Amino acid sequence: MLSEAVKNLVPYTAGEQPQDRSYIKLNTNENPYPPPESIKKLLGSLDTERLKFYPDPLCSRLREKLGSLHGLPPERVFVSNGSDEVLSFCFYAFFDRNRGSVLFPAVTYSFYPVYCSFYNLPYIPALLNPDFSVSIDRFLQEAANSSGLIFPNPNAPTGILLEPDKIESLLSRFPQDKAVIIDEAYIDFGGKSALPLLDRFPNLVIVRTFSKGMSLAGLRIGYALGSKEAVNALFTVKDSFNSYPLDYISQEIACHACDQAEYFRKMNAEVANTRTIFTENLVKTGWQVLPSQANFVFARKPGISGRDLYLKLKERGILVRHFNKETIDQFVRITIGTPADMDIFLHTVSRFLN
Amino acid sequence: MLSEAVKNLVPYTAGEQPQDRSYIKLNTNENPYPPPESIKKLLGSLDTERLKFYPDPLCSRLREKLGSLHGLPPERVFVSNGSDEVLSFCFYAFFDRNRGSVLFPAVTYSFYPVYCSFYNLPYIPALLNPDFSVSIDRFLQEAANSSGLIFPNPNAPTGILLEPDKIESLLSRFPQDKAVIIDEAYIDFGGKSALPLLDRFPNLVIVRTFSKGMSLAGLRIGYALGSKEAVNALFTVKDSFNSYPLDYISQEIACHACDQAEYFRKMNAEVANTRTIFTENLVKTGWQVLPSQANFVFARKPGISGRDLYLKLKERGILVRHFNKETIDQFVRITIGTPADMDIFLHTVSRFLN
Repeated sequence: MLSEAVKNLVPYTAGEQPQDRSYIKLNTNENPYPPPESIKKLLGSLDTERLKFYPDPLCSRLREKLGSLHGLPPERVFVSNGSDEVLSFCFYAFFDRNRGSVLFPAVTYSFYPVYCSFYNLPYIPALLNPDFSVSIDRFLQEAANSSGLIFPNPNAPTGILLEPDKIESLLSRFPQDKAVIIDEAYIDFGGKSALPLLDRFPNLVIVRTFSKGMSLAGLRIGYALGSKEAVNALFTVKDSFNSYPLDYISQEIACHACDQAEYFRKMNAEVANTRTIFTENLVKTGWQVLPSQANFVFARKPGISGRDLYLKLKERGILVRHFNKETIDQFVRITIGTPADMDIFLHTVSRFLN
Repeated sequence: MLSEAVKNLVPYTAGEQPQDRSYIKLNTNENPYPPPESIKKLLGSLDTERLKFYPDPLCSRLREKLGSLHGLPPERVFVSNGSDEVLSFCFYAFFDRNRGSVLFPAVTYSFYPVYCSFYNLPYIPALLNPDFSVSIDRFLQEAANSSGLIFPNPNAPTGILLEPDKIESLLSRFPQDKAVIIDEAYIDFGGKSALPLLDRFPNLVIVRTFSKGMSLAGLRIGYALGSKEAVNALFTVKDSFNSYPLDYISQEIACHACDQAEYFRKMNAEVANTRTIFTENLVKTGWQVLPSQANFVFARKPGISGRDLYLKLKERGILVRHFNKETIDQFVRITIGTPADMDIFLHTVSRFLN
């Protein structure tokens, strides 16, 4: 009774989410710091009788708030149930097998090929540069064969940032009738956003999440910024899939979180600071660490495989992420936790390495 | 830059959701009674620091609770972001254009043809009987041309229930290798569920929602009950679309709501009682009312079009739903509100009818 389509799907494998909290969890890039305490008060003050009604399907107030945060009118903001859902809608709205393949880096967020499989879209993995940075030249070489481009910035799982001047150069040479989607899930930890380019390039769509830089992975809130036309197309997809993707309580908390920019800025500066110190300590002890602008580092220790690192750390109560994929299988991705988490990490590896 | 697919979509039109609460809202089948007050206390007691972590992607505790509620193991329960999302996943998992068309009643939930358009699936609308009940014979006549069947029970927007013995007769004659999906969104208002048939018919999948009978439309919680194989297929679809569709807070509230069955039973008996009295009053004043087992009635008043009824009611502060579709355009769908809401409805129409 199953469709051929579902039989052929190879789903995305998310990082482990043990509900047992005894692990130090450095495997799914959650923020080590809690969201503002004021959310507790907000929750207590919500009108729970209101739950009998459907939520606002347009997320109007939240889109206003996000718009003002980014200097855009709400018509240029789309909100949905986590950035994974927003990305999925983007694949539907902007990529078209009859116009070409979906173009993305060969090493990147491993959900992208899954979306392609879900919507039956062919794709072209564009090789990285030898230093693991994404290659603009490769993107441009394949542009004509593509129906559009998507990449995370900073890239995952490398953490490497593509600088705005390079993005500008890419956009000015990429076909203007093909979408360029920049997934800025990890932009809040020192990276520079492509936001200032939105007005010059109507084919640019930027996707963001509340899960990393706003410590709200436990809610599911993602959004996209783009032209009115692009945002309308995302609404069309949403309204052909699920009219009410974002519940009332999530909308309320998200609106509140938009007012706490200063709290998040300080929190994320902490994370970036911990990353710098942790990276120095890894390098001192012989690790290779890619230069990260995200809330994680991608690192390897010569002499031990990424899988062994992952397993030995897990045995000792620390979860990191390993990707069983050629060219990166020597690495592990380590989320930046609190300074104490990173000290425990360093102490733990010092006991079984060397 | 848009895909052909998105250009061809005609999205679902949900009922109006004015955020202005001055209307009496009888247009989207929300429950007039609030969810249990204890949710307020639960919200106040939640650990908001927990929001920094991703929610449980398997919704394990909620699936356990729903399983015990229905006498099924959690492996036979799938949960996701509202029953619209669950339905969408069902269309992907169980219908296949190479095996035939999707079969559903010609008058039914108007999202079904939209899902078909979204996934590029052909469909066959099966005519209703002259009394507006769904026709099992039509379903069986078209079974061979279909890749599966879906219908709501009670049907929407008619409210008419297909009795369990007829469902049993349908299932025993429908091809066992094709899915039969029964959308029981409105089962909690006096209808009889097809649940007891699940064990005998592995091709049966039942979809439910917390939005109607549990007064939680403001959250987005839907679920499916079926064989382990069917539930696994829905997980495969979910994990190829969005790993974490249900946030932490929604999971907590939903678990709590599962413990309040007695509260909801009483509340929904109230709604059914109001429906009986309201129907009698409509009939007394010359309306035709289809026999409903849902929390709405589908009714017409000879001499005035459905559209005029809708407009005149809206002018007077009452929202109902009108469908601009042949064979039903004389009707309006009226959600059952509180007894006071229905009295106001009757008083209001008495002022402009006759």
